[in-house]
Amino acid sequence: MNQIKLTKLLADIRAGRTSVAAALRQLKSLAIHDLDFARVDGHRSLRKGFPEVIYCEGKTPAQVAKIAAKILQHNENLLATRADRLTYRAVKRALPKAQYHAAARVITVVHKPLPKRPGTIAVLCAGTTDIPVADEAAVTADIMGNRVKKYYDVGIAGLHRLLALNDELLTANVLIVCAGMEGALPSVVGGLVDKPVIAVPTSVGYGASFGGIAALLAMLNSCASGVTVVNINNGFGAGFAASLINQLANK
Amino acid sequence: MNQIKLTKLLADIRAGRTSVAAALRQLKSLAIHDLDFARVDGHRSLRKGFPEVIYCEGKTPAQVAKIAAKILQHNENLLATRADRLTYRAVKRALPKAQYHAAARVITVVHKPLPKRPGTIAVLCAGTTDIPVADEAAVTADIMGNRVKKYYDVGIAGLHRLLALNDELLTANVLIVCAGMEGALPSVVGGLVDKPVIAVPTSVGYGASFGGIAALLAMLNSCASGVTVVNINNGFGAGFAASLINQLANK
Amino acid sequence: MNQIKLTKLLADIRAGRTSVAAALRQLKSLAIHDLDFARVDGHRSLRKGFPEVIYCEGKTPAQVAKIAAKILQHNENLLATRADRLTYRAVKRALPKAQYHAAARVITVVHKPLPKRPGTIAVLCAGTTDIPVADEAAVTADIMGNRVKKYYDVGIAGLHRLLALNDELLTANVLIVCAGMEGALPSVVGGLVDKPVIAVPTSVGYGASFGGIAALLAMLNSCASGVTVVNINNGFGAGFAASLINQLANK
Amino acid sequence: MNQIKLTKLLADIRAGRTSVAAALRQLKSLAIHDLDFARVDGHRSLRKGFPEVIYCEGKTPAQVAKIAAKILQHNENLLATRADRLTYRAVKRALPKAQYHAAARVITVVHKPLPKRPGTIAVLCAGTTDIPVADEAAVTADIMGNRVKKYYDVGIAGLHRLLALNDELLTANVLIVCAGMEGALPSVVGGLVDKPVIAVPTSVGYGASFGGIAALLAMLNSCASGVTVVNINNGFGAGFAASLINQLANK
Amino acid sequence: MNQIKLTKLLADIRAGRTSVAAALRQLKSLAIHDLDFARVDGHRSLRKGFPEVIYCEGKTPAQVAKIAAKILQHNENLLATRADRLTYRAVKRALPKAQYHAAARVITVVHKPLPKRPGTIAVLCAGTTDIPVADEAAVTADIMGNRVKKYYDVGIAGLHRLLALNDELLTANVLIVCAGMEGALPSVVGGLVDKPVIAVPTSVGYGASFGGIAALLAMLNSCASGVTVVNINNGFGAGFAASLINQLANK
Amino acid sequence: MNQIKLTKLLADIRAGRTSVAAALRQLKSLAIHDLDFARVDGHRSLRKGFPEVIYCEGKTPAQVAKIAAKILQHNENLLATRADRLTYRAVKRALPKAQYHAAARVITVVHKPLPKRPGTIAVLCAGTTDIPVADEAAVTADIMGNRVKKYYDVGIAGLHRLLALNDELLTANVLIVCAGMEGALPSVVGGLVDKPVIAVPTSVGYGASFGGIAALLAMLNSCASGVTVVNINNGFGAGFAASLINQLANK
Amino acid sequence: MNQIKLTKLLADIRAGRTSVAAALRQLKSLAIHDLDFARVDGHRSLRKGFPEVIYCEGKTPAQVAKIAAKILQHNENLLATRADRLTYRAVKRALPKAQYHAAARVITVVHKPLPKRPGTIAVLCAGTTDIPVADEAAVTADIMGNRVKKYYDVGIAGLHRLLALNDELLTANVLIVCAGMEGALPSVVGGLVDKPVIAVPTSVGYGASFGGIAALLAMLNSCASGVTVVNINNGFGAGFAASLINQLANK
Amino acid sequence: MNQIKLTKLLADIRAGRTSVAAALRQLKSLAIHDLDFARVDGHRSLRKGFPEVIYCEGKTPAQVAKIAAKILQHNENLLATRADRLTYRAVKRALPKAQYHAAARVITVVHKPLPKRPGTIAVLCAGTTDIPVADEAAVTADIMGNRVKKYYDVGIAGLHRLLALNDELLTANVLIVCAGMEGALPSVVGGLVDKPVIAVPTSVGYGASFGGIAALLAMLNSCASGVTVVNINNGFGAGFAASLINQLANK
Repeated sequence: MNQIKLTKLLADIRAGRTSVAAALRQLKSLAIHDLDFARVDGHRSLRKGFPEVIYCEGKTPAQVAKIAAKILQHNENLLATRADRLTYRAVKRALPKAQYHAAARVITVVHKPLPKRPGTIAVLCAGTTDIPVADEAAVTADIMGNRVKKYYDVGIAGLHRLLALNDELLTANVLIVCAGMEGALPSVVGGLVDKPVIAVPTSVGYGASFGGIAALLAMLNSCASGVTVVNINNGFGAGFAASLINQLANK
Repeated sequence: MNQIKLTKLLADIRAGRTSVAAALRQLKSLAIHDLDFARVDGHRSLRKGFPEVIYCEGKTPAQVAKIAAKILQHNENLLATRADRLTYRAVKRALPKAQYHAAARVITVVHKPLPKRPGTIAVLCAGTTDIPVADEAAVTADIMGNRVKKYYDVGIAGLHRLLALNDELLTANVLIVCAGMEGALPSVVGGLVDKPVIAVPTSVGYGASFGGIAALLAMLNSCASGVTVVNINNGFGAGFAASLINQLANK
Repeated sequence: MNQIKLTKLLADIRAGRTSVAAALRQLKSLAIHDLDFARVDGHRSLRKGFPEVIYCEGKTPAQVAKIAAKILQHNENLLATRADRLTYRAVKRALPKAQYHAAARVITVVHKPLPKRPGTIAVLCAGTTDIPVADEAAVTADIMGNRVKKYYDVGIAGLHRLLALNDELLTANVLIVCAGMEGALPSVVGGLVDKPVIAVPTSVGYGASFGGIAALLAMLNSCASGVTVVNINNGFGAGFAASLINQLANK
Repeated sequence: MNQIKLTKLLADIRAGRTSVAAALRQLKSLAIHDLDFARVDGHRSLRKGFPEVIYCEGKTPAQVAKIAAKILQHNENLLATRADRLTYRAVKRALPKAQYHAAARVITVVHKPLPKRPGTIAVLCAGTTDIPVADEAAVTADIMGNRVKKYYDVGIAGLHRLLALNDELLTANVLIVCAGMEGALPSVVGGLVDKPVIAVPTSVGYGASFGGIAALLAMLNSCASGVTVVNINNGFGAGFAASLINQLANK
Repeated sequence: MNQIKLTKLLADIRAGRTSVAAALRQLKSLAIHDLDFARVDGHRSLRKGFPEVIYCEGKTPAQVAKIAAKILQHNENLLATRADRLTYRAVKRALPKAQYHAAARVITVVHKPLPKRPGTIAVLCAGTTDIPVADEAAVTADIMGNRVKKYYDVGIAGLHRLLALNDELLTANVLIVCAGMEGALPSVVGGLVDKPVIAVPTSVGYGASFGGIAALLAMLNSCASGVTVVNINNGFGAGFAASLINQLANK
Repeated sequence: MNQIKLTKLLADIRAGRTSVAAALRQLKSLAIHDLDFARVDGHRSLRKGFPEVIYCEGKTPAQVAKIAAKILQHNENLLATRADRLTYRAVKRALPKAQYHAAARVITVVHKPLPKRPGTIAVLCAGTTDIPVADEAAVTADIMGNRVKKYYDVGIAGLHRLLALNDELLTANVLIVCAGMEGALPSVVGGLVDKPVIAVPTSVGYGASFGGIAALLAMLNSCASGVTVVNINNGFGAGFAASLINQLANK
Repeated sequence: MNQIKLTKLLADIRAGRTSVAAALRQLKSLAIHDLDFARVDGHRSLRKGFPEVIYCEGKTPAQVAKIAAKILQHNENLLATRADRLTYRAVKRALPKAQYHAAARVITVVHKPLPKRPGTIAVLCAGTTDIPVADEAAVTADIMGNRVKKYYDVGIAGLHRLLALNDELLTANVLIVCAGMEGALPSVVGGLVDKPVIAVPTSVGYGASFGGIAALLAMLNSCASGVTVVNINNGFGAGFAASLINQLANK
Repeated sequence: MNQIKLTKLLADIRAGRTSVAAALRQLKSLAIHDLDFARVDGHRSLRKGFPEVIYCEGKTPAQVAKIAAKILQHNENLLATRADRLTYRAVKRALPKAQYHAAARVITVVHKPLPKRPGTIAVLCAGTTDIPVADEAAVTADIMGNRVKKYYDVGIAGLHRLLALNDELLTANVLIVCAGMEGALPSVVGGLVDKPVIAVPTSVGYGASFGGIAALLAMLNSCASGVTVVNINNGFGAGFAASLINQLANK
């Protein structure tokens, strides 16, 4: 659109239909839009079929359904996170292909799945109560075109469960590791693999876990190299970043 | 003393040298002292040969030397923690048998070592910078009559170092585990053994370790059962508690 | 199982049914499982009749009932903490022997009680509102084979209540001391006894108690030696650690 | 002064020397000054002989000496807190009667001591490292005309030391109780007496004492009634408030 | 009771009915109880007609009613704080004289009001939403035998409201000042009067008031001398301490 | 009123109906009221038609309606913030002209709108969930007589949306910028304009946003000059301050 | 420059020297620069004679001197904040007109003072130790072309000092109010005036002032409307924002 | 070694030199070592030529030199972080090829540089005081075989500086973005690119930056997707993680 508009303006100058001064004025006001479509270009591979993700918290079911419908006018697939069942129903009515991932509290609409990249993203979590966060990461990575393998309930209190997975973990391109309480799992995993580890603190715990702060601090202080961290319970952010990284592995 | 005083009072009543009313008044004021000598009795086994420990921080070398000399009038052995080299020299002048444990910053005076109890206390630490805290725990446990085994630099980033010690760790009665940064070591150790683990957060780290808070929170939130925690850098407290526990094993 | 598998492999090698190279490959993949059953061995005394404890928070009643049934297939007894009444009913339907300790919010199933060890674990709490936490500790210690004595509502504002218990407290092997608000009780108790004290901060209080932080900090800074600390409201953790300690007293 | 000015204005109106409108304008601008002298009147009893106290931190020795000299032009006595030895020397040169209370880091100049009120203020502290704060309180209360009794090193880890003082404590009008670490002493004292207790948290401790926060929180959450709290290390504030209270007892 | 028991013992010794040795044994075990009744003696003036105060939060209506009935067996009056209406109804059924102070959420039962002491306690609050806390303080002070004057909604944003009260405030013996948000009122009041000010931070506010922390910190850092602080929303504690202080004024 | 009273007093003095001494007494007690009406004078331009704003949180609908009615007796317009729909209904019944701004949770009653000042106040917010806070600011600024332009959902993740507004933003006199999460928008805006920016952190976010603390800290640390900050979610405060500033531009 | 470049490009297209396609490519890459010079235009009034301010902390004296010299090539005046005396000397050697404002720790170089705007900015501070922060604000506002009036040491503990200034304060266009400790001064001032108040928390205080956090929170929670806040000790930021506001008053 | 040992054991079984039971015993004890060499294999590609990185803080120069020499016995290159100049001199004496990167406080020894991978890692920082952290990241990424491009001093207060780099940033595989104060730069960059962004909060700032906490929280709450975070000032961690990611891009 902008590109068309700009081409026309340039042609108009060339053809003498617009003066240099008038064009100058127009171009200044266009500058942003020029920047805009440049940004779209740079982001096209990401955005193609996968533009904006809806964060449902604080939006009404009706609002989410409306935004979802609008996004799907220009895109094949859709991702909406932190959605409760009421929101899902509203979206479902508007978009019958909508699916609800109950544990992850995520809505997806997939008209045309993205082809899967070769490598895998491993998603681990320490306990069963971390699953909602881990699943949010897994669903996000999956819909963005990644192969995802899940390894749940491998907390360090029973270390052998994790060690038994050693060979498998070594085959992943990226590892997302979710844990609450003392948040030690990413450090242990980071010591076992030579790939990027994205640590996701969860709010699982009580008392001095302070809603995930204990786990967050532990992960930020990881003695294992190659560990980076996202916000508490931010499964989506981990899945998204992991997808960006895995995408690099397949350039 | 109090006992003598009390016996005399009772004899005076019996002999009619003191009225009931007068004795009543005296007994009320004695109550505390009665309680006092009772408490001394209860603590005798602990205190015998090992009374008060001097915490040197905030005391002058001269003050420490004076208190140390006073304690040794009634006791065989002495422990003074958080002592710098100047304090040590002051104590050494007063008490030539004094020894300085430089890494632990601990002064000991041992006239007659306590006999060693049969079981062992294992002292682990994650990195070499945690050694001062671990050593404070080890020296404390040692002077209180325990066999101590040290396993240093076994942090979880190189997990195999710890796993290689598995059999040895299983033979300890109590385990003191010191770690800074993300403080995950006590959780991993707690998952491997079936004995009490005393976790000691250290102030090793930077940024979001907040002087040991990250490690402290991690340890308080340990998903491994049987882990209890002491204050940041409190090697002495861990050694003392471990000694009380190990003492039980040898009743 | 693993042991059987391994024995068979070794026999196969010996019998020439497997080449050294093939066995080598298999053994590497077995390594974890070897470790695994080794750990099982080390933990057997603990786990026998008492394996995994279910933390119910964040699990549905149906999930808890299912896990409980599974655990009881291999074990005599069961402990499930932080269980509400709905969860209890679901477990009760599946396991008619289930009992609900309402104050402690704990479910137990005891097919064959563990024999009681000789010494006792004392459980103290400062006020009546601390009882749920104290009871969680007491039920945990009890089901794990310990004699438990409870001393409730002995907060330091009426110090004589505590002092009156002095002699009894001196007979316990381990003391669990629960307190909210200013959390001073463990320090006072720690000054009276010569046994390990496990301090449990509770979330009782308001305003600057910050949900138990004030009590937690007080306990971590206890001037009485021999005091270790668990997470806020973690009665289970205190009961478990006390049991490990009391077990040592009876080796 | 203002009063004189005001009287004159009213007389001027009465005498017809000033119109109502002009007086109205003047009175509006006088309002503040009227208020001002009223406030001075109300505070006279307090300020007489004891006006402003100099907080030396952040002031140069020369500045303190100058302010001190100025205050003494209108007053008999002077109190300057948080003063180092250099500051003392500067004050001493200017005011030869100046005295330095080294532990308390307080400078006093007493030309004419205030007569002592009948009742006593008890100042307690838990450990020897709390003495600077306790002494600041004691010196403050003393110079303000109170009888002060000091009970130092009566921390709760050796409870009998405190209980032995029970009768004496009951005779005080107000009690100032200083403690660092877990800050439990004011609660214990508050449970023993029926007089106001002013709790002073000190920064004594390390690790999770967070420079006195642990003690501060403990004191704010005291389960003993009648305990109020001042800022960390604020011995002066406690001494001042205790003096105001003790003054009431002698009205 | 204990006094009777002790008198009898002493009489028995005197009469030769008990040997010195036997008496010695009994006295040791009595020591605590001796201490106990000594404490009761010391506290009698306070406790007479006014013993234990019930903190209702975390107790069922039935529990509160039962404790209330028990306390009233030995006392004339009763105070129960943080009581909701349901609790009140339960108490009312058991004790028809019970009264509910709705704003303060306090229950009182007054069979025989304490005679009022001569001086007054002033209770101020900054805004209308602080009234529950201020009323808790006022009701507490009132039932304990003090004349209370309330000055509500005198926050510093409209300073003239406070200044207009200047003369009245100067007549109070003690001032309780409640404020949320920036908690500046106690500092301003403390600068106007020469009597003890008890500052009560309230949880009124939002965002960076952090449930009263902002006000609490402000009050602890008050630049006005003579201000001491209690826990957030602790109207009762302020009322109690103020009563202890006002009682001194009337010795 | 006060002015009338004062004029009368002065006239009485002049006429000899009041002695100088009696007038002096009266004037002292009036001093505050003098101050008061002086303050009213200074504030008249602000307060004319717009006195007190009702903060509804913690007040019942009936209370708000009553206060609102009272305010409107002397004023043309009314603003009540943090009002839920129930409160609105109560106000509406009493004052039929009341309007409810649902997103902003604000009630306004406008009998006679203030004339609009020439310049504009721009209100920006980062995401759609920040709108309630932004709207509170906008409604406040509007009713106080300012032209308001809203630029919503211009968060920095899609920077071109903001850059496209560059020219418009440069025309505003003051800019109110609301953002949650990382709170970066005010810094970016502050770098683009040369007018005062009032930053409003919102509680939008989760996990380590800590209810708006992350955004608050970001804004306080803004590297762009000219940015000042109000409390979390304090749209009203921003609107009020912006109005005071914009008023200056139109003196 | 960019404008020239752009004009030339457009002329080239018009003249047929550049094809539409080639121009399109160039324009896309120009987009940013177009935006850039637009921004420069928008900021010109601010930047003219007063561009970048040097924050000296973390820079060597040599670095500061070099940056200062570079800035002065294009500007008349210079402001460098948080400069120690060493830095000043380095700047002085390079720029002999440099002046050092010792209390404010600010260096200024004024070749051609900006003409003073008519209105005044009032700078208040609570105590003498707040003066460095207040002076930083004052020097900043002064060099940016504002008349500044200073009212120092007007803390609320002696409220009459502030009230006496009431009339003067009402004449200022903007008020900068600096305070440490409980930070109540901006609230009190904000209640007295009807102009924007910029509150500057200072790190003056100890203990629970937490380096200025107490004052910061108090100011953010101010119950007086029209108060906005800058970072702790950020005198420069307050002076800068006040200048932007005062500038509006003189459009 | 372990592999050889294991092969020998298997051969012994096969040859009948070891019984199945004896082998079983040996294998159990070997389990850990089996695991160990498996881990080494998995990590070989990473560790080859680049094993352990020395964190110098808390180690003496002599210790660092000794560890460095030991590491270089088996490796070509070495990285030591947080090294002061004294440490560098000690290393330099032992290892003449050592180089000191003064800003980054990093020592490197490069005997044989790793070949550079094709893609680039972009390292950005907001201000010049962030350079030490950015340089630590850059040196780390460089020595690990990556092409690094640095874009320093591109903070958002002058947004055009960043926008001018847009095209270049789009060519990087990974972006490391360092910022202190409000830490907004990673969010802005994350909105411009479609590659993984590693955010590094720095401790640059004062007051409410709380040593980097403000920036850390901002980055954790980034509204831009694809941003992960490391500890405050952890340039090394960012460089290491970026290298792991960039390595994926070149598989």
